[in-house]
Amino acid sequence: MKDRNNIPKATIERLPLYYRCLDKMETFDDVEVVSSKELGGKLGIPSTQVRKDLSYYGEFGRRGVGYDVISLKRSIGKILGVNKIWPAVLIGAGNLGRALVNYEGFAKMGLEIVSVLDADLGKIENKIGMITVKSMKELNDVVKRSNIKIGIITVPVNAAQEVANQLVEVGVKSIWNFAPIRIFVPEQVSVRNEDLAVGIVSLIYHLSWENRAQS
Amino acid sequence: MKDRNNIPKATIERLPLYYRCLDKMETFDDVEVVSSKELGGKLGIPSTQVRKDLSYYGEFGRRGVGYDVISLKRSIGKILGVNKIWPAVLIGAGNLGRALVNYEGFAKMGLEIVSVLDADLGKIENKIGMITVKSMKELNDVVKRSNIKIGIITVPVNAAQEVANQLVEVGVKSIWNFAPIRIFVPEQVSVRNEDLAVGIVSLIYHLSWENRAQS
Repeated sequence: MKDRNNIPKATIERLPLYYRCLDKMETFDDVEVVSSKELGGKLGIPSTQVRKDLSYYGEFGRRGVGYDVISLKRSIGKILGVNKIWPAVLIGAGNLGRALVNYEGFAKMGLEIVSVLDADLGKIENKIGMITVKSMKELNDVVKRSNIKIGIITVPVNAAQEVANQLVEVGVKSIWNFAPIRIFVPEQVSVRNEDLAVGIVSLIYHLSWENRAQS
Repeated sequence: MKDRNNIPKATIERLPLYYRCLDKMETFDDVEVVSSKELGGKLGIPSTQVRKDLSYYGEFGRRGVGYDVISLKRSIGKILGVNKIWPAVLIGAGNLGRALVNYEGFAKMGLEIVSVLDADLGKIENKIGMITVKSMKELNDVVKRSNIKIGIITVPVNAAQEVANQLVEVGVKSIWNFAPIRIFVPEQVSVRNEDLAVGIVSLIYHLSWENRAQS
């Protein structure tokens, strides 16, 4: 691998896109080999760019054959750091929080929710799988004890910013926010705002045009 | 708008990407105006391509100023069909199903979950918000009565394909699958396989390199 400082920022930002796309190909489509054209096509990235991006990190594909999906995914996974386990704390023991704790797909991305906290006294001591819900007062202890860098927010909209502030205060570096509202954090903390609704758009588009074509 | 048959398929497939990106800008980033370069940059699409794609549907931006985020989003929304209400049936009244029924962000995408079914007799008659969980035996009635075209699957992995088959059988045209497994449907039905785990990848990547840089 070349010196990381010489790799363009845009290339680095495309790696998670490649990883996610390869993961979907493996999990949902049973695809074994993919060309740079096919991979780029799914992401709106020219095949020349795909080949150039990957070439910064080594030789992955075979000319005229393509990339082995599983092995390319594994290689990019190492570069991304998802080959390790990252412990996370989840705040908000509602339905979505419970669903995420029980979700089977996180381990393959290196994520392990090790603790669930809630401000609602009625939810404390509830069990979610093997995890006992704790009070928000335990946040600092929990984060320090397990060296947690990732916080997941599944609280209602009006509580999300306050929870983010508390996560930042105890030293969490990455926040995955499922509350449908923008949250503000200091520059050294990264945030991903997840919106569960965006997935439906392409399905509705197809439906919509089918209906118009029929009428 | 030009004749839709003359619009390239690749352009049509990029519209949902633009829509989702504009929606995020409006919801999370409070951005009011965006250039084709900024919009393309977030999606890995060249600005020339963004301008060309949008030009098929009309004149949206102002040269040297950019696009008004809300108005461009609304225009693309109309093209996509998300300005109407699409009723949906959800199968699987577990935590994820409950979370999706209660999720606040679907209305803006035109999605309304009007019915929840489950094969588990213990869950039938349970209330999720205003909705009463019904037996799978009611599937055909429910779909016909509300003219439902969209089915959402939140059942365990081992039940997902069977549920998909039942949805197809009663005439559902679009399936949004949250079970982390590939499902097979006839060609005239569209499927979106949602993977909640992919969102974490970019966060872990940043964390991972921060840690390596420090050590």
